[in-house]
Amino acid sequence: MHSTNLCGLQQNGNLLFRRLYSGALLFAAFSQALANPFFYSSSSSHTSRISMAEQDPVKFGILGCAEIARKVSRAIRLSPNSTLYAVGSRSVEKAAKFAKDNGFPDSAKVFGGYDAVLDDPDVDAVYIPLPTSMHVKWAVLAAQKKKHVLLEKPVALNVKELDVILEACESHGVQFMDGTMWMHHPRTAKMKEFLNDPQRFGQLKTVQTVFTFAADPEFLENDVRVKPELDALGVLGDAGWYNVRACLWAFDYELPKKVTALPGPVFNKSGVLVSCGASLYWEDGKVATFHCSFLSTLTTDVTAVGTKGYLRLHDFVIPDEEDKASFFTRENPGFAELQRGVVADRNEHVVATDLPQEVKMVMEFSRLVGIIKAEGGKPEKIWPTFSRKTQLVLDAVKTSIEKGFESVELIS
Amino acid sequence: MHSTNLCGLQQNGNLLFRRLYSGALLFAAFSQALANPFFYSSSSSHTSRISMAEQDPVKFGILGCAEIARKVSRAIRLSPNSTLYAVGSRSVEKAAKFAKDNGFPDSAKVFGGYDAVLDDPDVDAVYIPLPTSMHVKWAVLAAQKKKHVLLEKPVALNVKELDVILEACESHGVQFMDGTMWMHHPRTAKMKEFLNDPQRFGQLKTVQTVFTFAADPEFLENDVRVKPELDALGVLGDAGWYNVRACLWAFDYELPKKVTALPGPVFNKSGVLVSCGASLYWEDGKVATFHCSFLSTLTTDVTAVGTKGYLRLHDFVIPDEEDKASFFTRENPGFAELQRGVVADRNEHVVATDLPQEVKMVMEFSRLVGIIKAEGGKPEKIWPTFSRKTQLVLDAVKTSIEKGFESVELIS
Repeated sequence: MHSTNLCGLQQNGNLLFRRLYSGALLFAAFSQALANPFFYSSSSSHTSRISMAEQDPVKFGILGCAEIARKVSRAIRLSPNSTLYAVGSRSVEKAAKFAKDNGFPDSAKVFGGYDAVLDDPDVDAVYIPLPTSMHVKWAVLAAQKKKHVLLEKPVALNVKELDVILEACESHGVQFMDGTMWMHHPRTAKMKEFLNDPQRFGQLKTVQTVFTFAADPEFLENDVRVKPELDALGVLGDAGWYNVRACLWAFDYELPKKVTALPGPVFNKSGVLVSCGASLYWEDGKVATFHCSFLSTLTTDVTAVGTKGYLRLHDFVIPDEEDKASFFTRENPGFAELQRGVVADRNEHVVATDLPQEVKMVMEFSRLVGIIKAEGGKPEKIWPTFSRKTQLVLDAVKTSIEKGFESVELIS
Repeated sequence: MHSTNLCGLQQNGNLLFRRLYSGALLFAAFSQALANPFFYSSSSSHTSRISMAEQDPVKFGILGCAEIARKVSRAIRLSPNSTLYAVGSRSVEKAAKFAKDNGFPDSAKVFGGYDAVLDDPDVDAVYIPLPTSMHVKWAVLAAQKKKHVLLEKPVALNVKELDVILEACESHGVQFMDGTMWMHHPRTAKMKEFLNDPQRFGQLKTVQTVFTFAADPEFLENDVRVKPELDALGVLGDAGWYNVRACLWAFDYELPKKVTALPGPVFNKSGVLVSCGASLYWEDGKVATFHCSFLSTLTTDVTAVGTKGYLRLHDFVIPDEEDKASFFTRENPGFAELQRGVVADRNEHVVATDLPQEVKMVMEFSRLVGIIKAEGGKPEKIWPTFSRKTQLVLDAVKTSIEKGFESVELIS
């Protein structure tokens, strides 16, 4: 078996990340918090001494008018601890139109450039939906200007770039979080409760996840997400990001030991991935596979199989409906006599949410920013750690493809 | 990329199988038949000139008293064109007890050995549930004695052995069929209708399938299915057989070009596989992955993703209920405005069946036997072809594991 050690990436690690890596207890605490249905309420151990109501809303500046920025603008508007404060675009007219179309208050500032947003002393935080190749420049500049950074995924073209961003955030004391919305849906915490249940689920053995959507021919050649100079990770960064995060989430963020790309990746004319998959392997025999593609119909499935129970859902990235979301479990199933059927405790779990998952994301980010602003606290390290582990696995998939599907070894 | 061509296996192919392979039209006709909900009725083009009611019931002899033989005995009993005629075991007492416990008629013959079943001139067909290592001996002997062969899966330890069996069946003019029951459920035909629908499903791009069940420690060391001298393929032959068949079925029995085992196979103390997975790759970019295990809870999932639609089911091997079975589809799904949800035509398709799938299997086998008996026809080649293709892929997975997860190339 041919293995490639991602030591190049590891050598770029610095003290900061060695510290992040060693935060096993932090993960445990966070898992506990995620498993706590009151994670976002005042009973959480993560809650600051000031309540959300008392907190000054975090003033957001948005860099660029990407389509996804429309959704996040709405989320900032709906979030009780955030406010739409400024938007910058390459042209001030475009910024003004975006502000008008997306419910910014009349007092919001519109700028013909991104620098001006960062130079505004009243901007607390920026949301960066720019193409991935521009992340390192603008996220670092934002951190240097003491702006907290909510960064769209994929966060960087590779972990080396991400490390530059995270180091800037760390050294300037600003919060970093990526835009993986499903992490913040209350369903996610409820699912983790089930996966953590030794009676109903047992030990997790395997995860299978698929995220595909059918892009049209125009998208496949010209969309930002398949342009080598803008989003060189293609479908791996756009859809595979979610698959990898789902695997890491299910396995409590333990990095796999080996990552092996699967045969059959498809590239567009510019050489950017539009379909691919990978197998992840943990030393104690746990395995996961994922498939992501712009060439198949919309599918967002996760299946997690334990020694005693089973969990699946079919809309993990974006719930079918905004105010509630389901997942399905089966506990201790077995064949009936003569295998004439299956006996199992089957459940559909419906989890309601008062606000959409992207609003929950903005609220959590702003809550952390609020603590730093009000109490001079340190940024929460969980979120950059999740981003970095996701990026490490993406990089390994890319490396494995480049090396003809060799296994790539990760050292955690 | 390292590839291993399974030329050793290919070289064992003979004229018979070259003929089987070239039967593309046969497959097309069969696909059409499978897609026809009346496949088992008298309107099918496969129906002989005599009806099932007019046909003398096929007299079955059973070789051995394995647990699965209880289920198939019931199926033979319930099948209108079959009858339980004889059973042989290593001891006549065991055979007699089996016959008594499993609803054999009082007239049924019980033998203290397998040879005696084959020597009985009134036995038309045998069902062979013996350990896999014994298949080649007893299936060949049965064919030589002009008994039609319903052979439990996995059909052989490797395709070389299977070729010996199939050649014996071909040269003695007896029908061969393996015991893959789900193929015969009317749900299977209905699902194929959906997969073949260019408007609702489009082109099939990927299949993901999992078959796992949690075996106890005793099973993992001592069951027939994990004994190197009895069932050396372990979980790959017992559960992976179904996963591979599901992939082949979905892709209209086109063999994949490459088969690559996934990292993380688990072996028991005797070196027999108890958990593994593989990735299948077709030259035009179609891909599939499967995972099979004795170490996780009971799961039997298939997900098939096309360019326009999506199909999934969670009980493909044995339906949750005996008299009906469901599958789930989604057609032309898309994100709602601002990706605030998913818009799709979602359906649960419930397919009723008048008889359990294993009875349908016995009926189809006996129907084919009846045609040969009554009209001197030739055996139907579809069924041995399906078995052989399944075995070829299993062999390739095993080879890939042995070669450290190298890709194994199949030439169809």
